[in-house]
Amino acid sequence: MATEVQIKTAAAARASRKLAGVTADIKNKALLAMGEALRKNAKAIIEANATDLEAGEKKGLSRALLDRLALDGPRIQLMIGGLKVVAKLPDPAGEVLSEWKRPNGLKIRKVRVPLGVIGIIYEARPNVTVDSAALCLKSGNAVVLRGGSDAINSNIAITKAITEAAYDAGIPEDSIQLIEDTNRETAQELMRSREHVDVLIPRGGRGLIKAVVETSQVPVIETGEGNCHAYVEKSADLKMASDIVFNAKVSRPSVCNAIETLLVDEEIAGEFLPAAFKRLREAGVEIRGCEKVRRIDPKARKASDSDWGTEFLALILAVKVVSGPDEAIEHIAKHSSKHSEVIITKDKKAAGKFKAKIDSAAVYVNASTRFTDGFEFGFGAEIGISTQKLHARGPMGLPELTSYKYLVDGSGQVR
Amino acid sequence: MATEVQIKTAAAARASRKLAGVTADIKNKALLAMGEALRKNAKAIIEANATDLEAGEKKGLSRALLDRLALDGPRIQLMIGGLKVVAKLPDPAGEVLSEWKRPNGLKIRKVRVPLGVIGIIYEARPNVTVDSAALCLKSGNAVVLRGGSDAINSNIAITKAITEAAYDAGIPEDSIQLIEDTNRETAQELMRSREHVDVLIPRGGRGLIKAVVETSQVPVIETGEGNCHAYVEKSADLKMASDIVFNAKVSRPSVCNAIETLLVDEEIAGEFLPAAFKRLREAGVEIRGCEKVRRIDPKARKASDSDWGTEFLALILAVKVVSGPDEAIEHIAKHSSKHSEVIITKDKKAAGKFKAKIDSAAVYVNASTRFTDGFEFGFGAEIGISTQKLHARGPMGLPELTSYKYLVDGSGQVR
Repeated sequence: MATEVQIKTAAAARASRKLAGVTADIKNKALLAMGEALRKNAKAIIEANATDLEAGEKKGLSRALLDRLALDGPRIQLMIGGLKVVAKLPDPAGEVLSEWKRPNGLKIRKVRVPLGVIGIIYEARPNVTVDSAALCLKSGNAVVLRGGSDAINSNIAITKAITEAAYDAGIPEDSIQLIEDTNRETAQELMRSREHVDVLIPRGGRGLIKAVVETSQVPVIETGEGNCHAYVEKSADLKMASDIVFNAKVSRPSVCNAIETLLVDEEIAGEFLPAAFKRLREAGVEIRGCEKVRRIDPKARKASDSDWGTEFLALILAVKVVSGPDEAIEHIAKHSSKHSEVIITKDKKAAGKFKAKIDSAAVYVNASTRFTDGFEFGFGAEIGISTQKLHARGPMGLPELTSYKYLVDGSGQVR
Repeated sequence: MATEVQIKTAAAARASRKLAGVTADIKNKALLAMGEALRKNAKAIIEANATDLEAGEKKGLSRALLDRLALDGPRIQLMIGGLKVVAKLPDPAGEVLSEWKRPNGLKIRKVRVPLGVIGIIYEARPNVTVDSAALCLKSGNAVVLRGGSDAINSNIAITKAITEAAYDAGIPEDSIQLIEDTNRETAQELMRSREHVDVLIPRGGRGLIKAVVETSQVPVIETGEGNCHAYVEKSADLKMASDIVFNAKVSRPSVCNAIETLLVDEEIAGEFLPAAFKRLREAGVEIRGCEKVRRIDPKARKASDSDWGTEFLALILAVKVVSGPDEAIEHIAKHSSKHSEVIITKDKKAAGKFKAKIDSAAVYVNASTRFTDGFEFGFGAEIGISTQKLHARGPMGLPELTSYKYLVDGSGQVR
């Protein structure tokens, strides 16, 4: 007998072929109808969520996890707002990426098309259910959602509301699938579903992403890990440097585009660090420094070797004094997760070298790494920040959820 | 102690950072020098190849495998010609793909960059060694080559010649790595080398590709499988249809862009098939038909269910009578490997529907599927034909061996 994953991925694949031909107009109306359905069913959704929260408390989930799981009126309003935003974005499918004619008369057009079926494996965050469904739908993709077991009642209630509304608005049935059996094996099965799933995007913490990347036979887009660096070059405007470092570390330490390590040129370390540290410590930041840093600031804890490679996701900053751009670039090459790095400098040559040599998704000159974000880049949406180089790199919006095909018109050409 | 794979992938990763900054001019000179080195070392290479051939014969390798393995003067000349072609192609790295300014003043540029380190896992075909090294080098990527054990002496001799020449011409040392230990475990290890390898491209038969796709933790680009279809719609010019079907089946049946199944509209099947079959049979093609085909042509063998899903790679053609475009499209959706399909028709509406609904890398109207090829598309090179939708689809040339990064220039922006 076919399993739930087999049945639902096959249904999604069939639906995806119809969905690829649905107009932007219908998709946009469906997105707004999905928002309306969330509004109408808010009570039922919050009730289902209460069941999840109760079970989570019994199970002893942490406060942080329970908070991510919890839904209330304002949070449902946020989901509805998100759907409206996605409805307003341009439809990426159908765009002609290039076209040319061959000497033999063949006309070739490269046209953007949906990926097909996107699988999303995520944790107990019900907002990811709505957000992923919306972005996949708008880009013409069917979606198979496999959320965490702790949010299953919330996810069932949400999916029921949005799918009914979407299908009523003209979206092909089966375009949005929720795997309701949250046994570990269903995630494993999804990762083996090469026949019907074109790409898997894990959304969540490092452990989840690592497990999917290492296990999946379906192509994966890896997102999330950010061991980001700020480098204060000797010519930097020190006030600007302090502002950027402070913002990149303190404004939201738990996210991937926050910095974890500060590199500073030896020539200005004595002048720059004491004031910068004072400000950071007042915001609760713990400083872990190399030997040279600790000579300038004896209060700094000694940085261990592993600190350079750690994404703290907390108010901790590793700090190292370097001799100049070359040592900074070398340090970053060795330890970075290739997410985002910034140089603060007035020296165009140093900036140019940094931009050329640093191999990260986003390389900044004189701006906070916190801007690595689909909305801040102007994409209007974000399904994640890719830290791999295949397919998509950095913030992924709707075009990153597409592939392309070649349409070739001939008049009887043979080879 | 570090293994050969660990040492060589780490060295390739270090080299890739330098290689990314090497000019097109140096890369082109290196490619020509590599050709010159092959010419100078042809005798040593052919001797090493003789050792491989002798071992292969003792081991009982098939004639076909021995033929693919064998090198002689003309074949080395072909390799040299290939290097010259790659030297003439434009360098994809550095291209500005787009640039824009945000309301907060941030200037964002999306710039094409090499992928980094590309791993190639392949069989006992020494020409793949040269070809892969050339394409990776030109696109700014370091390459780790893991060829089949039966070609190891040839590969060592070739790699020695081309790396010396490349490094003398200014390519950073360690940019081209050959894994000399061809134990199965070294391929496995390469598939786990996420730290230093950005993408793996398996080149070879279906078994090899399947094994890599299912095992690798490094992102893979899947190439090769082609269960391609020709559909003769009722309005088709039957002479053109016969020419295209004949060419797509017979001109080179062992390649992925050859057709395996012919679909034909019921209304014209009786007129079209007898003459088409006569021509195909004269070229040695075995016909396997559905019931309706066998009523028209009783000599046709009965097609089994599995025939529709089989890439024969041989002079066998499965043939099915369909009621029209919808049934043809449905059949293709069910059985195709999403490589290449063609409709032969004079009806623009039927052609439009076929192009919109068929989800394959290349969709043809009135031309042979045999054109799905990097050279025929005008890319000037080809590292394979991707049958996945992530990253690259269809023929992959040099741009498909690149990623991109975002360069962001600010003036102190914080978030």
